Amino acid sequence: MKIKQILLAARPKGLPVASNFETVDAILPELQEDEVMVKPLYFSVDPYMRGRMNDAKSYIPPFQVGEPIESTGVAEVTNSKSALFKAGDKVMGNPFLPWATAAIFPAAHLRKIDDSIPLTYYLGVLGVPGLTAYFGLADIGKPQAGETVVVSGAAGAVGIAVGQIAKIMGCRAVGIAGGAEKVKMLTDTFGFDAAIDYKGNTNMDAAIAAACPNGVDIYFDNVGGDISDAVIKHLNFFARVPLCGQIALYNSTEVPVGPRIQPIMVTRSILMQGFTIGNYSSRFGEGFKQLSEWVKAGKIKYTETVEEGFDRLPTALLGLFSGRNSGKMVVKV
Amino acid sequence: MKIKQILLAARPKGLPVASNFETVDAILPELQEDEVMVKPLYFSVDPYMRGRMNDAKSYIPPFQVGEPIESTGVAEVTNSKSALFKAGDKVMGNPFLPWATAAIFPAAHLRKIDDSIPLTYYLGVLGVPGLTAYFGLADIGKPQAGETVVVSGAAGAVGIAVGQIAKIMGCRAVGIAGGAEKVKMLTDTFGFDAAIDYKGNTNMDAAIAAACPNGVDIYFDNVGGDISDAVIKHLNFFARVPLCGQIALYNSTEVPVGPRIQPIMVTRSILMQGFTIGNYSSRFGEGFKQLSEWVKAGKIKYTETVEEGFDRLPTALLGLFSGRNSGKMVVKV
Repeated sequence: MKIKQILLAARPKGLPVASNFETVDAILPELQEDEVMVKPLYFSVDPYMRGRMNDAKSYIPPFQVGEPIESTGVAEVTNSKSALFKAGDKVMGNPFLPWATAAIFPAAHLRKIDDSIPLTYYLGVLGVPGLTAYFGLADIGKPQAGETVVVSGAAGAVGIAVGQIAKIMGCRAVGIAGGAEKVKMLTDTFGFDAAIDYKGNTNMDAAIAAACPNGVDIYFDNVGGDISDAVIKHLNFFARVPLCGQIALYNSTEVPVGPRIQPIMVTRSILMQGFTIGNYSSRFGEGFKQLSEWVKAGKIKYTETVEEGFDRLPTALLGLFSGRNSGKMVVKV
Repeated sequence: MKIKQILLAARPKGLPVASNFETVDAILPELQEDEVMVKPLYFSVDPYMRGRMNDAKSYIPPFQVGEPIESTGVAEVTNSKSALFKAGDKVMGNPFLPWATAAIFPAAHLRKIDDSIPLTYYLGVLGVPGLTAYFGLADIGKPQAGETVVVSGAAGAVGIAVGQIAKIMGCRAVGIAGGAEKVKMLTDTFGFDAAIDYKGNTNMDAAIAAACPNGVDIYFDNVGGDISDAVIKHLNFFARVPLCGQIALYNSTEVPVGPRIQPIMVTRSILMQGFTIGNYSSRFGEGFKQLSEWVKAGKIKYTETVEEGFDRLPTALLGLFSGRNSGKMVVKV
């Protein structure tokens, strides 16, 4: 069968561009015993994927030049030679699907999902972003009722979940995002107590002080760079900083330089911990159960930006770095 | 009674100098009921005291201009109107003594110590530096047998204890210190597996790689700055960094700038935690008991640099910033 794939054509230097990707035709072989053929319905694009475009030691192996990009996604079974799956089943990869219009996997690589829940939720609030928000905030942030939680990249899939979980846990939730519309969405739709537009504020220091009259107890950091420098100054004694991402720095071609943070960390007994969601894989069941309950109870609302068309995958990925999305960015194939 | 005191004459800008201190004559009032008069025998000088010379929010209030400097110290009771103390008792402040040739305290401010142990041990291996090493390494570092522990400022009072406790816990201990003599002392006297002379090495990166063939699992940081930049590059996945001090930066007059560490912390799931020994005050008994056992069993050796004379207190404190000391720096009054 003839399919289309999107390959990594060349590793980016700095900000990725369209020419780092290439769409090619390919042929799927015959389905073998215990194999399953799927047609992807939705792909997720996520900031961490920038790191896989480099040839660098990290927690997930890099993409290979000339090979398909891969990401999390939801697919439909179109043909099955496994007793475990039948045509029409909705599935996810374990954990990734290649960027292709169809693919064949051993049955063990797939897991069936319940399609009474909107399918894109598995890529967002009930998927990697939701679990990332939940474990980063609960396990590293350890929120106590009455504390102030600041989240950067607040209008992204992880950030929206962090703010809402902070509220559920009795905290003051303050989001930092780029643009008046996003900031309004955070307070009006998602119940943040305050939100700061970093594009519209020339004095982030004053804006953070105003939004956080009792200082900052937890800073859930998705972005790094100047925004984090401004927040860190307002951290309280014994503050916790779950380090989830550094999207402001992913496209740097030189080692980024900034104010040293260790002196304030010593003086105020601050904890900072980098993490990736894979660290919590043994506890995904717990996280999924908790998030599902909150979603069903209406305590966590959800939003997403949907790009349409397989060919739009690179555009959607690149759009993450210009803040094109509100909430989870997904591509409908 | 006529006494001498050493006051903070002016707050330093950058590196402190002799003129920041002033020795003055003073008069002690009559001893009142429940009060105790003491004559200090030994004072401790410690790097954290630099922070108290600034007028800045920190975990201990700043010294006041025109008031005596204070530090931990061991004293002898010379006169007592309290039933709890008698002349000749050896005591410590709770926690500080003013820099004076004699002082009067309410009995509640003093605690008696056992003088069958050398008195200066209470300022070093069984005092703040020893407890700092123990809790920072055990509680934040969480060493596992077979891991590699690197400590900077290794020839200081905290560093020497960190390396020896790391060895007791089955780890490879690597020290970083300034000068060939200090480095030799770490390996030959204190049993470090390797030691790096940062003054004699133009390529710290290569030196760390050679001393840590399996990378670095715990980096106990006393110094900050360039040395820490070099170590951080070699941290393993899930490494822990107890941040104890930043002596390289204490005298900075501008905000120190350096390579941002958050990206590597995310990628490798690294934990960094600032702490001060006061955080563990409820567990001092446990730490003192454990350290005493190790000292009595000969598992922790101890060294100190003793300056003689009350007037030498400022010189001894300033000497910490030029690396004048091996092990704990104390002043014999």
